[in-house]
Amino acid sequence: MQQNIYDNPEFFSGYYELRKRSDNYNDLLEQPAMRGLLPCLAGKTVLDLGCGFGRNCADFLRRGAKRVVGVDISQKMLDVARRESYGEEIEYINMSMTDIHALNEKFDFVYSSLAFHYIEDFHKLICDIYALLNDGGQLLFSQEHPVVTATKNSEEGGYICNERGEPVSYKFSNYNESGLRVISWFVDGVEKYHRTMGEILTEIADAGFIIEAVCETSPDSEVVKKHPKFKQEYIKPNFLIVRARK
Amino acid sequence: MQQNIYDNPEFFSGYYELRKRSDNYNDLLEQPAMRGLLPCLAGKTVLDLGCGFGRNCADFLRRGAKRVVGVDISQKMLDVARRESYGEEIEYINMSMTDIHALNEKFDFVYSSLAFHYIEDFHKLICDIYALLNDGGQLLFSQEHPVVTATKNSEEGGYICNERGEPVSYKFSNYNESGLRVISWFVDGVEKYHRTMGEILTEIADAGFIIEAVCETSPDSEVVKKHPKFKQEYIKPNFLIVRARK
Repeated sequence: MQQNIYDNPEFFSGYYELRKRSDNYNDLLEQPAMRGLLPCLAGKTVLDLGCGFGRNCADFLRRGAKRVVGVDISQKMLDVARRESYGEEIEYINMSMTDIHALNEKFDFVYSSLAFHYIEDFHKLICDIYALLNDGGQLLFSQEHPVVTATKNSEEGGYICNERGEPVSYKFSNYNESGLRVISWFVDGVEKYHRTMGEILTEIADAGFIIEAVCETSPDSEVVKKHPKFKQEYIKPNFLIVRARK
Repeated sequence: MQQNIYDNPEFFSGYYELRKRSDNYNDLLEQPAMRGLLPCLAGKTVLDLGCGFGRNCADFLRRGAKRVVGVDISQKMLDVARRESYGEEIEYINMSMTDIHALNEKFDFVYSSLAFHYIEDFHKLICDIYALLNDGGQLLFSQEHPVVTATKNSEEGGYICNERGEPVSYKFSNYNESGLRVISWFVDGVEKYHRTMGEILTEIADAGFIIEAVCETSPDSEVVKKHPKFKQEYIKPNFLIVRARK
């Protein structure tokens, strides 16, 4: 059973406030990289897994998609999506990503932003997506980078600073020990799953996908000029992004 | 011009002694993982890039390869190869990996163990290999993992130990700053090139390869039982191995 942490009121309000900030990592690091790898969507059908507030669903319509289905486990997120990101061609479905094999429809493009690390059974997820894609269809997803999800004990992971308090290195542990990680993010007990880069990419290849691009986000120099704290993202990869074709 | 560090007498003798030790990383961590990803070689032609002592060339013959070409920039390494790992079907060529476009022959399988991180122009290398492969041919290579090659200043990288001297984390820096790294390994001034996982894998996909498997080595439990120091390799990835098909 997938954890539905986004419907936890305390978590939801923390996350909602984070995304309103102008210097959040999604908007300045992950989303630009994802947009850079978006295929042409004109006339295509799109499935957005973990669509959250639905902002990308609305963007896909603007890019010419003819139909967009947004799936999210959180009713609270979908309430915002239906209020802020609507359109006749967008359908929101309240469903766990573990149940998408029940969708009775095929798609040209499957998209997922920062949601796959919440899923325990990556093999099933990737096979389900492959089955939902039309031939030649593409998958584009991002997730937290394995170097970031690896560490079990938070004291053994994170930035190491010099005497002036500036980050100079990043430390991590438990990389080769895949599985559940319980972390504190807005609330205690948030469940994520660590997998190595090798496990993720080989699972995708084994499902039959052709891997087209692998991106580990690095901040743009303009972003660093405006938000100096992003300089620390030259030290380590932050998000992992993969595009693959059926 | 690729550095020919293996012909440096001091480096060569240090490396030669290392490989004779029973607990070296090549034999206990990298080679088992590489063997696990070897395709069937019966009747195939093989090119081994950076073949060194030629041990793998001899192994490919035992596995049924009909012809093996071993290329290495180091005359000293090839002297050992010609003495210890010979056969009518093996040809050793003293050549930099940067010059392989001059080989007037196509192969069914290109292999390279722990040599690609010495090459500056990865794009050219991968395109050259693609051109040297027959259709359906495969590439299998290993290199130092990008997390290991990343750090510029050695003080900012390496294991972090607890008060009992046991490694608990691994630190690194400069991951998103690709390029030359000059390190000390047996001698000062050894030149290597850092590239991110994303850069390596996207370059391979862009050349036209289908990525079949990505492996980040992790020690076998039997190895850890016999050589407890390998337990530290659960903390971080050590080598990167990729298999791809033309």
